[in-house]
Amino acid sequence: MDINEIIKTITEQVIAEINKNGGATAGESGKVNYAKYIDHTLLKPDATEAKIKKVCDEAKQYNFASVCVNPSYIEFVAKELKGSPVNPCVVVGFPLGATTPAVKAFETNEVIEKGAKEVDMVLNIGAAKSGNWSLVEEDVKAVVHASRGRALVKVILETCLLTDEEKVKACTICKLAGADFVKTSTGFSTGGATVEDVKLMRATVGEKMGVKASGAVRDYETAKKMIEAGATRLGTSSGVEIVSGKTEKHECINCGKCTSAGACPTGNVSVNKSVY
Amino acid sequence: MDINEIIKTITEQVIAEINKNGGATAGESGKVNYAKYIDHTLLKPDATEAKIKKVCDEAKQYNFASVCVNPSYIEFVAKELKGSPVNPCVVVGFPLGATTPAVKAFETNEVIEKGAKEVDMVLNIGAAKSGNWSLVEEDVKAVVHASRGRALVKVILETCLLTDEEKVKACTICKLAGADFVKTSTGFSTGGATVEDVKLMRATVGEKMGVKASGAVRDYETAKKMIEAGATRLGTSSGVEIVSGKTEKHECINCGKCTSAGACPTGNVSVNKSVY
Repeated sequence: MDINEIIKTITEQVIAEINKNGGATAGESGKVNYAKYIDHTLLKPDATEAKIKKVCDEAKQYNFASVCVNPSYIEFVAKELKGSPVNPCVVVGFPLGATTPAVKAFETNEVIEKGAKEVDMVLNIGAAKSGNWSLVEEDVKAVVHASRGRALVKVILETCLLTDEEKVKACTICKLAGADFVKTSTGFSTGGATVEDVKLMRATVGEKMGVKASGAVRDYETAKKMIEAGATRLGTSSGVEIVSGKTEKHECINCGKCTSAGACPTGNVSVNKSVY
Repeated sequence: MDINEIIKTITEQVIAEINKNGGATAGESGKVNYAKYIDHTLLKPDATEAKIKKVCDEAKQYNFASVCVNPSYIEFVAKELKGSPVNPCVVVGFPLGATTPAVKAFETNEVIEKGAKEVDMVLNIGAAKSGNWSLVEEDVKAVVHASRGRALVKVILETCLLTDEEKVKACTICKLAGADFVKTSTGFSTGGATVEDVKLMRATVGEKMGVKASGAVRDYETAKKMIEAGATRLGTSSGVEIVSGKTEKHECINCGKCTSAGACPTGNVSVNKSVY
């Protein structure tokens, strides 16, 4: 049996197992505080230092797991979070995952030296889609090696661009390469985390590895579903809303990316109806 | 007068000059062959090696200026284009521009060693929006220095996220830092090249520096307008259509990014009406 046949069989078995179990279910208890699950995230290219500071202040106030930013802000974030239990987290090879293993490794070392305690790298998606799994593996290993145990490594699969078989294969490679987490999405592609993907990833990597659901996690109910499906971390810019129940009114920036009335992939809530 | 006042004054003068001249105008001649203006571009994260090969074959067939890809494919592209006049071109710090100068410099050296003859870096947009112009300058200089004359350096401003004053300031910094081109857009943000922006950039950098219009350049008429406005290079995935007049029927991938009926920012032409 060749490797593709093996993966296909494993995928079918994993999906059958999920359907049999029906996934985890939650009790009828009151709201849980999910603060420690949340990577409070601001990755927009035009984010100012002032906005990054606000995110750091909120993370300290609500005791989130981390603040997740682009490399250019990691030094500032590490300084802001110093003395707090909130981890500085940074993205690498983001959001396309299409640079070389050497660049991702260099970037990993650079951000760790500037204070990152968690590194969210993007998988080489093009290599996965080309069936070049040895490059996918080399890429993940390069970042894990560069981190040398100094930071958690999460690998973003960009699940919306992968088939179920590719997701299982990618998860398996990440686990074998020594990554700490698999993560669903960058938030910059065609879709975010789904309950089905989180279940599939959890079933594939087993109980001990982390699974991070990111993209499209913007309220308490979605957060709850993702955690019930097996997520141990949530990447979101709506952490305050999820934890406090406050629904901050976001302004429509008319980015044109809303896919249906009320569905705003940028995290803004009110959608400009003029685009429909 | 402080630096911001100076920039404001320069911007007003440049815009007044553009309005006075009314921009460049074209004669009533037949269609011009714009092949040598075109950077034939494929930057999607899930692009396969087979699709990259097709882009290289087309670039050689139509004699485009370059093939522009992500770093992960530069070695393959350099091999495919060997012996042809088409330059291997690669993006750096792409598409957010939010990594550090050291990472952009490392990536530049890496891709040049793998065969890149042109490097399209993204400006540190967040630094520009924060008024941290010294970091913007340091960043461009780091890439120019790393290229050491071995490759053309183009700087992507991501004009859709900048004010006119910020565009003028960014162009001035790029020119002083020794970049070869300023470039409008990544194609991954909220908008692409506009005639107004190309005119403003051309007026700011003068006649000798390159100006590349990218994003939303998908047909002959738009290409013509951009060149008349001062563009000396076009970044597009529609090079074949622009040069041959063929309108290849693209398939809607239902990415949800179409902003109005018929307007597809991914370069696909037929839009899935179900999203409206």
